[in-house]
Amino acid sequence: MSDRERARGSTTPTLEFWIDLASNYSYLSAMRIEALAARYGVPVIWKPFLLQPIFRELGWTTPLFVAQKEKGQYVWCDMARQCRKYGLRWKRPSEFPRNTLLATRVAVAGDKAGWVAPFCREIMTLNFGYDRPVDSAGVIATVLERLGVDAQEALRAATSPQNKEALREQTAQARARGVFGAPTFFVGPELFWGNDRLEDALETAIGAL
Amino acid sequence: MSDRERARGSTTPTLEFWIDLASNYSYLSAMRIEALAARYGVPVIWKPFLLQPIFRELGWTTPLFVAQKEKGQYVWCDMARQCRKYGLRWKRPSEFPRNTLLATRVAVAGDKAGWVAPFCREIMTLNFGYDRPVDSAGVIATVLERLGVDAQEALRAATSPQNKEALREQTAQARARGVFGAPTFFVGPELFWGNDRLEDALETAIGAL
Repeated sequence: MSDRERARGSTTPTLEFWIDLASNYSYLSAMRIEALAARYGVPVIWKPFLLQPIFRELGWTTPLFVAQKEKGQYVWCDMARQCRKYGLRWKRPSEFPRNTLLATRVAVAGDKAGWVAPFCREIMTLNFGYDRPVDSAGVIATVLERLGVDAQEALRAATSPQNKEALREQTAQARARGVFGAPTFFVGPELFWGNDRLEDALETAIGAL
Repeated sequence: MSDRERARGSTTPTLEFWIDLASNYSYLSAMRIEALAARYGVPVIWKPFLLQPIFRELGWTTPLFVAQKEKGQYVWCDMARQCRKYGLRWKRPSEFPRNTLLATRVAVAGDKAGWVAPFCREIMTLNFGYDRPVDSAGVIATVLERLGVDAQEALRAATSPQNKEALREQTAQARARGVFGAPTFFVGPELFWGNDRLEDALETAIGAL
């Protein structure tokens, strides 16, 4: 046990993965995180949340790279290259950011039920790998059925007042802990922002950075 | 020779390194680029320029992460971690961004004279490794002398009308080619933004990405 682990008071560090389903860079991490974390022996805790209410509270009315044309154009070139690098399917979304409210509520419900990770991967692959809308109950039900989940029950659970409140609570927690973008990773109290920091977060989790 | 190299019509791809001496993430690249590019067998062309006139033209009056408090706080944590990762000295600058106009003019002059790389590394290490101002002719002369360069001659060359114009021209070229941040790398027409993309740029240069 390293000093750092001892300081955290835990021998099994975990990696919190704060994911916004509408976020393109979250797509890269969603597709990579499970295999990579398994190699490090670090368990992943998925934390689906909504970035837009946080942006609004911070006074950012649109994603920065949408507001800034030059950066915006670059992001799509970068995404194509990153997907090539990681071997991920990529089709530039014709709509961005997409409405992922219902899908995120389902992801929160799926967290309790144990299928949050494959569900998020499927939704993000539709959005960023195939340029397909992911807002309707129909699309989401198809994804759930493919995963062997009772779609009607999952959708009922997702839209229950308790689950809506759970997502609001998760988003408020993100805000309180200083999240300002997605993906964000936490190792204990340490915040890592962006897919480019996934490896650093894992190195930190095992006490190597 | 790969298809991509053939398409570029060159067997010796080069990496253009557009560096702003006031930029903290440029520090990381300045310290890493020569050793890394040598491993790839890719020559580096240093392009010192000024980001601030470009920010002004784009309507961004301060660096984004200075304007955005949450991101700003994060950047300094991130810098500390990145420097630890790369084994670089780090001391958070008490002034940011620092005035690097004269140093950048000297770097442009040094580009012709062949000492641009070690000069930039020294200046950036003072700024980001030791939290020291780098605006005065005195500090710059000390650095030049340490490199075995005639400081008075270099400073005269740097502040000549021709050299001032050369820096303005270099900055205008950056703007014309779509540079919106630093560091920026070019491999042929392909733009890569940020220290996190240095490896990708080199992989592209050798036709591997």
